[in-house]
Amino acid sequence: MTRGLLIVLSGPSGTGKGTVCKTLISKRKDILLSVSCTTRKPRSGEKEGVSYFFINQNKFDSMIADNAFLEHAGVFGHKYGTPKNFVEKALESGRDVLLEIDVQGALQVKQNRPDAVYIFLVPPSLAELEKRIRSRATETEAQIISRLGKAKSEMEYKNKYDYVIVNDTVDSVISRIECIIEAEKLRSVRYTENKVTD
Amino acid sequence: MTRGLLIVLSGPSGTGKGTVCKTLISKRKDILLSVSCTTRKPRSGEKEGVSYFFINQNKFDSMIADNAFLEHAGVFGHKYGTPKNFVEKALESGRDVLLEIDVQGALQVKQNRPDAVYIFLVPPSLAELEKRIRSRATETEAQIISRLGKAKSEMEYKNKYDYVIVNDTVDSVISRIECIIEAEKLRSVRYTENKVTD
Repeated sequence: MTRGLLIVLSGPSGTGKGTVCKTLISKRKDILLSVSCTTRKPRSGEKEGVSYFFINQNKFDSMIADNAFLEHAGVFGHKYGTPKNFVEKALESGRDVLLEIDVQGALQVKQNRPDAVYIFLVPPSLAELEKRIRSRATETEAQIISRLGKAKSEMEYKNKYDYVIVNDTVDSVISRIECIIEAEKLRSVRYTENKVTD
Repeated sequence: MTRGLLIVLSGPSGTGKGTVCKTLISKRKDILLSVSCTTRKPRSGEKEGVSYFFINQNKFDSMIADNAFLEHAGVFGHKYGTPKNFVEKALESGRDVLLEIDVQGALQVKQNRPDAVYIFLVPPSLAELEKRIRSRATETEAQIISRLGKAKSEMEYKNKYDYVIVNDTVDSVISRIECIIEAEKLRSVRYTENKVTD
C-alpha cells in the first residue's frame, strides 16, 4: 500500500483557503479533509467527527501532554488542534489528507511532518486582498487594518512552503493543486512501492 | 522575465526516452529541445543547429578547455556535448529547455545545474524492457544481455533524480511530465518575479 500524501494548504487570512479547500474536497472524493478537535460547543448543524471532534478541556490537555496534536492553538478562549492519530491512520491506509490551516499552525505542523507538501495560497495583490476583506463587510475599520497588516507580515513566510499559488480563480487554483499532488507522487523519494522488479 | 526551466529527461537505454521527448516537443511548442555539439559528420537529412551543431575536434577540445559544456562524452570514436551557452540563453529568455540524455550524462549535468528538474524514465518492468529491446531486433544476443545488465545497474541511480516516471504509455508519461513542469513552476524557490506587491 502506497502511503498517502499530507497536503497542507495555508496562507494569510482572507486569501480564500476555505473556498479552495471546500471545492477541492467536493471534487476529489479520494482526498480526505483533516478534522480538528475543539473545546468549543457544537454550533447548529455541526456534526461530531465531520465538522470537528468535540472534546472537553481535560481531554484536550491530556492530548497535549501525550503529544497527540500535529498543532494546536487557542482562539477566542477555545482550543483547536489537529489530531495526529486521525491524519496518520488515513495516510497509512493510502488516503491523501488535506489540512487547511493558518500560517502559525502550518509552521507547527512542519516541525512534526517535514515530509508533508506545503502550499501557500496568496492573493493576486495586497490591494485585491483588501478589496476581498472589505467586501465581507463584517469587520470594523480597525479590524480590517489589523488583518491586512497581519497578512502582509505572514507573506514573509512563503519561503517556508514548498509551493506558492496565486489565488486568481478557484478553478485554476484547484487544477494547480491537483498537478502538485500528481507531481509529488512521482518524486523519487516516494518511489518505493511501485519499484520495478523482474 | 521569469527564467525558464531546464528539464532533464533521462533513464536506462531502451526505456523510450527518445519517443517521449519527440512527442513532448511536437506537442509543446513552448519547450525547446537542447541541441548537442558533435564531432561526427552530418548524416543525410541532418541540419546544422537543429539535429546537432557539427564542429571539429579542435573546436570541441577548446570548448572542453573553456568549460563550455554541461556534459560531454565520447561514443564510438565521436564526441558529443551539451553546450552551456545554448541552454543558458534559452533559459534566460524564459524558454523551458528539454534535455534528453543518458544516465552518465545526466549526472554530469547535475553537477553543473543542481537547479534543473531531473526526471528518470523507467520501464514498467525489466521483463518489459527486455521485450522492447528484443523487438528492435537490431542487436546480437550478447549485446542484448549487456544492455540489460547496464539498464539494471543504471536503475540504481533513480534516487539521484527528482522524479521517477514509469513509461507505461507515451500519452500518460507526457501528461505527467507536463504536470511536473507546472508544479515545479509553482515552487516557492522560483516565486520571485510574480511576487505580490501593493
